[in-house]
Parts: sequence; C-alpha cells; structure tokens
Amino acid sequence: MPSKDEVDGKVTLAVVAKEAGVSPSTVSKVLNGHSDISDATRARIEQLLALHGYRRRSKGAPHAPLVELVFHELESVWAMELIRGVENVAKEHKVTVALTECGTRHAPGPDWIEGVLRRRPMGVVLVFSTLPEKVKRHLRLRAIPFVIVDPAGDPDPDVSSVGSANWSGGLAATRHLTGLRHERIAIITGPPDMMCSLARLDGYRSALAMAGLEADPGLVRFGDFHVQGGFEHAMDLLRRPDRPTAVFAGSDLQALGVLEAARLCGLSVPEDLSVVGYDDVPLAQWSSPALTTVHQPLRRMAEEATRMLLGPGRPGTGALRMELATHLVVRHSTAPPAGV
Amino acid sequence: MPSKDEVDGKVTLAVVAKEAGVSPSTVSKVLNGHSDISDATRARIEQLLALHGYRRRSKGAPHAPLVELVFHELESVWAMELIRGVENVAKEHKVTVALTECGTRHAPGPDWIEGVLRRRPMGVVLVFSTLPEKVKRHLRLRAIPFVIVDPAGDPDPDVSSVGSANWSGGLAATRHLTGLRHERIAIITGPPDMMCSLARLDGYRSALAMAGLEADPGLVRFGDFHVQGGFEHAMDLLRRPDRPTAVFAGSDLQALGVLEAARLCGLSVPEDLSVVGYDDVPLAQWSSPALTTVHQPLRRMAEEATRMLLGPGRPGTGALRMELATHLVVRHSTAPPAGV
Repeated sequence: MPSKDEVDGKVTLAVVAKEAGVSPSTVSKVLNGHSDISDATRARIEQLLALHGYRRRSKGAPHAPLVELVFHELESVWAMELIRGVENVAKEHKVTVALTECGTRHAPGPDWIEGVLRRRPMGVVLVFSTLPEKVKRHLRLRAIPFVIVDPAGDPDPDVSSVGSANWSGGLAATRHLTGLRHERIAIITGPPDMMCSLARLDGYRSALAMAGLEADPGLVRFGDFHVQGGFEHAMDLLRRPDRPTAVFAGSDLQALGVLEAARLCGLSVPEDLSVVGYDDVPLAQWSSPALTTVHQPLRRMAEEATRMLLGPGRPGTGALRMELATHLVVRHSTAPPAGV
Repeated sequence: MPSKDEVDGKVTLAVVAKEAGVSPSTVSKVLNGHSDISDATRARIEQLLALHGYRRRSKGAPHAPLVELVFHELESVWAMELIRGVENVAKEHKVTVALTECGTRHAPGPDWIEGVLRRRPMGVVLVFSTLPEKVKRHLRLRAIPFVIVDPAGDPDPDVSSVGSANWSGGLAATRHLTGLRHERIAIITGPPDMMCSLARLDGYRSALAMAGLEADPGLVRFGDFHVQGGFEHAMDLLRRPDRPTAVFAGSDLQALGVLEAARLCGLSVPEDLSVVGYDDVPLAQWSSPALTTVHQPLRRMAEEATRMLLGPGRPGTGALRMELATHLVVRHSTAPPAGV
C-alpha cells in the first residue's frame, strides 16, 4: 500500500499539472531536471510546486551514495583542508565525495543544478557565503539537503551553515602581541566587504583597548587575503619612520607577504618585527620562521557540515548555524619588541 | 535486435555460470559488485570470466557521468594541483569528479572496489606508482578504463600512465647552479627506493660531469621529500667546514627546510647560499625568497590522464606511457656564490 506521503505527492503533482495546464509528465520532467522544457513553463511549474508545499519523498536509496562538495575556486590554500574534512566524514559513512568547482564567486551555475538533480546526492556542502534564492529553491524542491561552509562569516539566516569565531580570533592574535609588550601594532585585515575582515579588525581594536593602547588609523590596512596584498601594505608600513614593531596579517598568505617585505627591508623576524598570521593552513608551519597564527578549524568546519548532512540528526526545516572556536598557535614569528 | 557483442556476452555468462555450477544471476551479481557472494565463489567466477575473455559491454550511459580520482593521501601539497587538473578536463566533458582517499600507499582497498563497481564511472585516475594485479583485474573485467598519474616515475608497463621527466629536471636544476659558477653543490634527493629520486640524482651527477666537477659523496643525501628531511640534512651540510655554496633540494618542501636551516645558521639566501627546489607547487612562489625550482607539470599530468579516459581516443588494450617535460623556473633563491 502506498504511504500517505506518496499519495499526497501524487495528488500535488496532478493538481500542479492541472493548474499549470501541462501533463503530469511535464511536471515530473521539471522535478528530474530535464532540459527540454521552456524556461517560462519551468518557472511556472516550480512556482506552483513551491506554492503547494511540494517536497519530493525519497524513493529508497539514490543511485550510489554521494555527497557533493561545491567550491567557487579550487586555487585557495583552504580548499585542501575543506576537501579532507568532507572526505573524512564521507568515508565513515561509506559515501563518495563528488567535487565541483564553479566559475563564479556567488553561485553554482545552471549546469551544476541540472547535474545535481541527475546525481541525486544525499546532500550538498557548499563553500559560499551567499546562495541565490533560485539555487535554494531548486534544492529544497527536490528534498536535497544542503549546508554552507562559510569561512567569510556572513551566514544566510535561512540556511544551515558552519563558520568560525572571527572576532575572537582577531582578539587572540592581538592580545598575544600586547602581552609581549608591543605598542605599535599594525593590522592588515581582508577586504572591507567581507564580514570576517571586519570581525577580525574589531577583535584587534578591542584587544588594543583592553591593553590601554590607542589604535593608530595609519596602521590599519585592508588587504586582499593574498600574498601580494600583504607584501604591498607591509612595504608601506615598514618604510614609515614610526614603523610598527608587530603586524597582525589577517591571513597566512598575507603574513608570507609581510615576511618577504621584512626580508627586503633588512628586518629580522621576530627580532625586529613580530608577525601573526590567520588560518593556520599547512604552509604556516613551513615558513621561515614558522608562523604564529590563529587556527581556523577549516577541516573540522567541513566535517561538521558533512555530519549535518549524513549524521543521525539530518537537517530538518530549521536552519542551524554552528560557529567553531579559533585558537592561537604560537610558533617562531613573534617575540617581545627590541629593547623590552 | 541485440548486437553480436551482446549475444556473445550473454553466451559467455551462461557458459561461466554452468562451469562454476551457479545460476547466471550469481554471475551477474559478481559483475555488479554485490557483496552477498562468498569470497571463494566470487574468486572462481572471476577466474572463469577472465579465462573466457569476458569484457562487459557498455549498456548506454552510466547512471551519472563520473570520473573517479583516487589518492593514497590528500595531505600532500601536490594533491590540489592534481585535483584541479582532473576537474578541468572533467568540466569540459560535463563529467563530475568523485574523489577517494584510501589509507594505504599501494592500493585502493576492497571497499573502494565494491563502491566503484556500483558507481560505474567512465574511468578512474589513480595516483599510485604500482597497482596490485587484483585491482587491475577487477577494473578490466568490468571494462572500467583506468590511467595512473605517476609522479614517482616508476611506471607499470602493463598500465597506461602519465609521468614527467625526472632526469632532465635534475639536470636542469644542477646546470643552473654550475652556470652560476657554483662548485660545491649538494643534493638532497628523495628516498632511495623511489625512481624519481634516483633519476633526479643521476641528472645532478651528469650536470656536474658536464661542468667538469667531481661529485663529492659527502654532499649527496637521501631525504624524505618533506620539510623535516630537508631541514635536518641542510643543518648537517651547513655545519661542515667545507659547506656547500648551493643545495639542490629535490622537492619544494625540502627546499623550505633548507631555507629554515640557513636562517638558523645565519646565512642569507641567495647571498650566502643558493637553493633550488623541485615541483613548483604554489607555495614555491610565496616563500621568502621565492624559490628557483623545477616545474613539474602536475596539473597537466592529471589533465592528460583524464583526457586519456574521456577524450576521443579512449584507451584500448595497449598501455600508453606519456612523459611530460619539466622546466626550470628561476626566482630569487639562487645567485652566483660569494666572491665570484
């Protein structure tokens, strides 16, 4: 005997088909991601399905158990840590990881949507801060659960996501430097339009205030989170007559740029200049000297996101926001300022 | 009307079932990777299938077009470049990349084999030097094509693979140093049981001979291709009274270890010591100073391997070995020795 859910689903399909003036098989085609439907018809049907609260019931197991991981760029030094995290949890559940890189920063394209509907994964982990309504609607309509890993710290209140504590990270980095008795501490944070940049900057400001130090606006810079941005701002900062004795670099890549600038200016790290990174990607321990940095638990973030999808309490309708702690890792790029 | 191939396939299945004393559906189960067959029965059936030269005919498209990429470890700084390469070509063909990490260095485990048979990928890219007979047999029996990406340079003559020119790379690195007029040049190559280590070492020896220099056995070291190995050998080399003026580090990670040793010994790079890496992974350009290194085309190797699987001339029965060129990238870690 079919379950009540199945009956409801069939009834909804028939009603939607009637209201849209199409056959039930056309509605099925839309649900299965076929491309031979006009955009206008597809949009009308999707609207009606959403209106009627249609959610596809799972018909037993999907083809082969997959979890999808979607990036906008694989270049990043983060990508590997995130892949490992997803892979770790997928392996526990004997699920395969399918990897997609999509060109644009803001959303997976229509090709991906079509593909994902055919692959029918158990869930999707997306590495994006914001997700367009259209993508959310597509996935929800097909009852494909999804979670966002959001290192940028700008969670969509409507979607389950895993981030980390950026403000606390900025605070910890700067308190380490004030604890060593630095007084002229520069920050090169990320781009001004990213929440994580602003949160780290505010953490820096609070740490200075807690140590009774004034923040010098000339020592506050917005970088690009890449090596070049760190390098250029550091060259400028280190050539000032009142140069800082320490730089909180906002990312490990920017910290590498600061190390290179220090070398070219003839300054030894940490004797003449202390440098703190952020992220603790693997290369932070291999730089010379090894970087003191804030550990952002990228691998664990990806693990938690995947667990939300595959674990016992799979996500319901309510959006869950999880924020994991960051912590400082002290290595060899920081020391008290000369003369202290 | 069924094609002759299909008829032949059915005949073979029936014959094998009869010879094995099982039903044809049991033979099908073995072919489809079901796990409810005893190991002994499975082995007997596989042997008979191989004996009769059975190869599964493709029944139209697989579930969703997948290409599998299998690693033994995702930690490596290479992994990202290889993933990007596979992803680039898969995207051109609108194929999804499924990623597997398997614990052991030498072969994907039985779980993976079972999974891959269920997923029915269009092909498999394996990042391993050697592949056990069992894995090859399983894949061939199911007509799943596979190619090995083999940076270790030890190709299995029986399997299609893509590698790169290690001997030429070692030669180019060392000729660059002799061209700068270095005479005391150390090498820290990889482990002695890896072909690529030996090929790079031989390239080094030939370059010294071409420059009329004797190779000093005290300057030849076998490392582990990781930072720590480079660091330890470099500390030992740099403390010698007749220390080298240049080190060919055999890998970028080892080169980072050499930079750290130089820093601790109070030597400036490149003024007091020249350092050449190998691989040209992204971090090589971010080190301080940026590394002169041999570019190993990891991304292109993965692209070519994937193209062998998805491109027009999909691999037939003959094994193809492709070896891509390496080239030297000169950055800021090399200069003439002091006093020249």
